[in-house]
Amino acid sequence: MTLETDFISGLRAIATDPGARGLMDDAAMLGDLVLTHDMIVEGVHFLPDDAPADVAWKLLAVNLSDLAAKGAVPLGVLMGAGLTRDAAWNAAFVEGLSAAVAELRVPLLGGDTVKMPHGAPRAFGLTAIGRAMGTVPSRIGARPGDTLYVLGNIGDAGLGLRIARGDMAGPDELVQAYRRPVPMLAAGQALAGQVTAMMDVSDGLLIDALRLAEASGAGVSIGLDAAPRSPAAVALGLDRAARLRAATAGDDYALLFAAALPLAGVPGKAVRIGQVVRQPGLHLHDAAGEVPLPETLGWLHS
Amino acid sequence: MTLETDFISGLRAIATDPGARGLMDDAAMLGDLVLTHDMIVEGVHFLPDDAPADVAWKLLAVNLSDLAAKGAVPLGVLMGAGLTRDAAWNAAFVEGLSAAVAELRVPLLGGDTVKMPHGAPRAFGLTAIGRAMGTVPSRIGARPGDTLYVLGNIGDAGLGLRIARGDMAGPDELVQAYRRPVPMLAAGQALAGQVTAMMDVSDGLLIDALRLAEASGAGVSIGLDAAPRSPAAVALGLDRAARLRAATAGDDYALLFAAALPLAGVPGKAVRIGQVVRQPGLHLHDAAGEVPLPETLGWLHS
Repeated sequence: MTLETDFISGLRAIATDPGARGLMDDAAMLGDLVLTHDMIVEGVHFLPDDAPADVAWKLLAVNLSDLAAKGAVPLGVLMGAGLTRDAAWNAAFVEGLSAAVAELRVPLLGGDTVKMPHGAPRAFGLTAIGRAMGTVPSRIGARPGDTLYVLGNIGDAGLGLRIARGDMAGPDELVQAYRRPVPMLAAGQALAGQVTAMMDVSDGLLIDALRLAEASGAGVSIGLDAAPRSPAAVALGLDRAARLRAATAGDDYALLFAAALPLAGVPGKAVRIGQVVRQPGLHLHDAAGEVPLPETLGWLHS
Repeated sequence: MTLETDFISGLRAIATDPGARGLMDDAAMLGDLVLTHDMIVEGVHFLPDDAPADVAWKLLAVNLSDLAAKGAVPLGVLMGAGLTRDAAWNAAFVEGLSAAVAELRVPLLGGDTVKMPHGAPRAFGLTAIGRAMGTVPSRIGARPGDTLYVLGNIGDAGLGLRIARGDMAGPDELVQAYRRPVPMLAAGQALAGQVTAMMDVSDGLLIDALRLAEASGAGVSIGLDAAPRSPAAVALGLDRAARLRAATAGDDYALLFAAALPLAGVPGKAVRIGQVVRQPGLHLHDAAGEVPLPETLGWLHS
């Protein structure tokens, strides 16, 4: 965490162009284009025995989720692929990528392919380019008094990862939520003009809500019971501990946003989970009262 | 080689958008934007004891060289950085990147930072976005009868790598040619409207000239003696073997292009090295007659 933070602080000093948004946002701006680049590395973001097609899907989906949070329409992607010599794995990855670009309707425009040194993990990077559809929300526009919303289930992917690892039993639909997140592109486009701030929930609801609030120079008050959970997730645990696990698990790729006015025409069901407040920090409560913050608020990539 | 080729063939079947140029070019097109993404991996493209600032420079320069070959003006870059926990190395990398974006005048817009698993090599990817300045040359437009030119020295970087590795003695300027290639952006912009095909020489003059010819459905005849070499390189060897080493060494980032007409207003000294011919393949000669092709024509990343 410290290392990554130091490095990013150094990069922020370089990235002085307004389009970089101070490297505080999920994406950069270049004219009316929205640009994002995320990496996924074997042993960090995916497991060596994950299906290659799922890895390809995730690489594409996590980047398109960043475009969704900016309300952008995907125009194309470039991929950097650091491969091993496992030809069967590579072929399955290409097949999965082919299906993913077809289903998510974004053209593969270019990129680079390299062979990693012997014994090194696979590493992928993907740049997604989208076109802004008017207002491009950032993380910094939320104001005290705004309502905080989530669109999409929280915690499904975290349960799915534990099931996939064999740490617990549970239904396949939760594993699918982990392996095949669906970027909320249409919803993001519908919301972009109505929100004061928006981001995707990639590292956990609590940490991402705190990041949005801090970027906006505000705090946030969240009702833990309000965070939307799927029936499958609820069936595996309803108590406060289960809800805290859901709110601190990553990989959900739901949309988190603040809005001052009642929302119109949002696809799906956006759920009110709290409020932007003047007092800095994260304030958590449920039906039983104040909820002490867990030690880690999300996935810190450390 | 086989693995990389199979994988890229699979990607070509996916990349059907015209902007992808069949993944046969150095860059992709999106409206009037030119996009490229190259990766560099420790142990493959750079050495563990290379100076971090040189790695940062090279990451930026190799991608801007692709924009140069398309005659594009750089607008911005996004970087994916897969780091180890070596804080001093990372700090030196950021410092070097800061100097590189300042000197090469391109804004850092965004990207991603991840920590590689323990023991894994560092891996970087960079996406460069440029704006086309009119015609965007590809590799496919060369016609039999066109003259083939090179702008920039051939073989300096290959000698520099051998000197850096301690395999031979030689002057520091050759090591600098390897460590600090300078993308020929102004020259590429001046040439773009005058050429029938253009690319940068990244893997070796012979292999890249053959690629340009094959992409254009033609062959190429090259005079080995004509390939421009620096005085420092010439001082280390003038014979056919030395010239062949120069013409098959990578990392020079010179511009290679074909043109039908005499060139006007090209910065620097473009040198005629041969001709595009009807007969497929690479035909090599020097003052002593036909030159048998070496076993490897360039760096094949295998």
